[in-house]
Amino acid sequence: MEKIRVGIVGYGKRGRSINNVVLLENEDIEVTAVCDLYEDRVEMAKEHVVNEGRKEPFGTTDYIEVLKRDDVDVVYVACSWEDHVKVAIDAMKYGKIVAMEVGGAYSLEEIQELVRTYEETKTPIMMMENCCYNREELLATSMVRAGKYGRIVHCSGAYGHDLRREVSYGNLLRHYRLRNYTNRNCENYPTHELGPIAKVLNINRGNRMVSLVSVASCASGLEQYVKDHPDLVEQDPTMEGRRFKQGDIVHTIITCAGGETILLKLDTTLPRYYSREFTVRGTKGSYHMDTNAVYLDGDSHGGLEAADNAASVLNNAKEYEADYLPPVWIGMTKTDMENGHGGMDPIMWRYFIDAVRNGKEMPIDVYDAASWMAITALSERSIALGGAPQMIPDYTNGKWQYREPLDVVDFSECAINKK
Amino acid sequence: MEKIRVGIVGYGKRGRSINNVVLLENEDIEVTAVCDLYEDRVEMAKEHVVNEGRKEPFGTTDYIEVLKRDDVDVVYVACSWEDHVKVAIDAMKYGKIVAMEVGGAYSLEEIQELVRTYEETKTPIMMMENCCYNREELLATSMVRAGKYGRIVHCSGAYGHDLRREVSYGNLLRHYRLRNYTNRNCENYPTHELGPIAKVLNINRGNRMVSLVSVASCASGLEQYVKDHPDLVEQDPTMEGRRFKQGDIVHTIITCAGGETILLKLDTTLPRYYSREFTVRGTKGSYHMDTNAVYLDGDSHGGLEAADNAASVLNNAKEYEADYLPPVWIGMTKTDMENGHGGMDPIMWRYFIDAVRNGKEMPIDVYDAASWMAITALSERSIALGGAPQMIPDYTNGKWQYREPLDVVDFSECAINKK
Repeated sequence: MEKIRVGIVGYGKRGRSINNVVLLENEDIEVTAVCDLYEDRVEMAKEHVVNEGRKEPFGTTDYIEVLKRDDVDVVYVACSWEDHVKVAIDAMKYGKIVAMEVGGAYSLEEIQELVRTYEETKTPIMMMENCCYNREELLATSMVRAGKYGRIVHCSGAYGHDLRREVSYGNLLRHYRLRNYTNRNCENYPTHELGPIAKVLNINRGNRMVSLVSVASCASGLEQYVKDHPDLVEQDPTMEGRRFKQGDIVHTIITCAGGETILLKLDTTLPRYYSREFTVRGTKGSYHMDTNAVYLDGDSHGGLEAADNAASVLNNAKEYEADYLPPVWIGMTKTDMENGHGGMDPIMWRYFIDAVRNGKEMPIDVYDAASWMAITALSERSIALGGAPQMIPDYTNGKWQYREPLDVVDFSECAINKK
Repeated sequence: MEKIRVGIVGYGKRGRSINNVVLLENEDIEVTAVCDLYEDRVEMAKEHVVNEGRKEPFGTTDYIEVLKRDDVDVVYVACSWEDHVKVAIDAMKYGKIVAMEVGGAYSLEEIQELVRTYEETKTPIMMMENCCYNREELLATSMVRAGKYGRIVHCSGAYGHDLRREVSYGNLLRHYRLRNYTNRNCENYPTHELGPIAKVLNINRGNRMVSLVSVASCASGLEQYVKDHPDLVEQDPTMEGRRFKQGDIVHTIITCAGGETILLKLDTTLPRYYSREFTVRGTKGSYHMDTNAVYLDGDSHGGLEAADNAASVLNNAKEYEADYLPPVWIGMTKTDMENGHGGMDPIMWRYFIDAVRNGKEMPIDVYDAASWMAITALSERSIALGGAPQMIPDYTNGKWQYREPLDVVDFSECAINKK
């Protein structure tokens, strides 16, 4: 079996992580080209590859040079948010299969162009939304497919991640978040929670997202953080008295064709612990990521204090793992994940490589990418208009009505379906 | 000290509970009149009073008869939702001090009339939002007042209560919810979570709620429940194939003058455990009712799995009780509460009676009642218009800009302020 030859575009924190944890760990993959706007990162990428005993890749600061090469089958796009779609479009035009990192759209136009380019070139493209392959999300989705929660009525999720340090030290870290948090106010990073939810609800395959409203709180978290970190202003004088447009908490409510609603929360500039708060609600039960709890109709948790309830169901989802967890996750330990031999990134790439090798449909395709990323541009509009509802474009042009559901893994392989 | 003479209008589940747990337990109160649309409930009310060794009250099915009586100082309004405002308005016109149970408004007109009547008559009126006096909400608010959470940016809450039985058996239980869930689609019961949040954010006193958007999911929970309970259709044939307008999950996002946002969730027709999900988010920390957790900036919960995080902070709010809990809650046990000698209802009535006796400002006044109840009518509009933003009337006519903050209890009495 020939190796899949990957060109990496963007060697920031994410590019480095995927290269070291996934690509260089996989003997079926060869990293043949690396690109970044910064020369020192290009050198770092080469070093990382060589240090693993692999052949030194081609290095460049111009991504078009990567696209022109014959020894690149797949382009992995991990550059700054602003360039994801542009690089992906150009890659498809050059016939390079695209693995595109997550982010939101800046305009509906760029998204439409992404879809158009795919339809013209038919170059395979997958959005690399790793959370779609995460343990908790897959367990919950498996239980949905088995009917345990009844008819699904509502899902919610968050990008709940205290990014104050990463954002405010952005100039010093060469990070694109600082400029985005300074200039824009939107649901700027929807896909970690929306991706798994969209899969649960069969979005673009029997269902679609029809409209949304989006409302942002004031922006106070980062200003307080800057005040509390005088060393920051010493190192980066542009931070003195800087005001931020990005609201601390942004809520977006999406209505689907089937009547289901989706609540998204962007929550990145106030103190908090990390959680995607993934929640699935149905007529027969629910899943709650924050407590890793399954609640089924008839469970006797009524009448207790709320905290008692949380305690009584805390982590009870574990009881369902043997039956409902896809085999790819069964028996995986934290050590496996820390070593890069397991966890959502390697699993996702395994499924991507399988689709590439065998010409399968991409589990997260261009229509998924387009509709998920569009939420960012539409939320920016809605917020600017005081929460006014926005229609979500149908990038399938009506084909969602007959496209067959496609999960990111095959749940028929779960133990419950083998009994 | 003379007794406060109370006339009860409405002797359903709530009226009975308050009569037996609060009014008849309090030697400072005399129940002198009882009214309900159903004659048997009037008789039951009289019995309850007599059984406690008290004088038999006047009984009637016409609430105006209660208002006309000289031996009634206070009218407690606990009738069906549709009549709260009408009875309260008439009571004020008769000069009877009003204790009005919670609910939502059916129109902005009835609310405007409530405010106008108050301003014309100056008859004291309090909305009896008991959750404003609950332990967790008061602890969190006390910590807000002490600055522990920094500048408050966002609050959220829910009426998370599985009411499927109460709603669907409504005709048999003489309950008004069935007709409301059949005919309307709105945030029909906002005040249990909104009340404490509005107090945190000084709504109508330095701040105000400016606009909202509201979106409802499909209505599937009750239909499934009816299908699963064939005995229901046998007893009440009108339930066969009944369709419900009320969405299972309704989210409302309110924007305040200070830039804060409030997220409300109505969640009453899917399986779930009870929680108001009261959450306060600030630049320095947060409170989470579902896990009774306090999270302060600098706590090291980062990097763990979400469920581990929930476990690590579960119930840690207890550590703050000695310092921040108002004295009225210190040392109160579950047994106290079950016996009716403690808990939010008796505490609330104690504060109400104190305001009545001493001519104090009502802790939850007509402007609070008006703006909180208006959310229901406005959410109905917004949902009908696909989530279109609605302006929330300023019932203070600009006085919110200089009205002094007023908490429902005096937090200066907390131990932290005595050190």
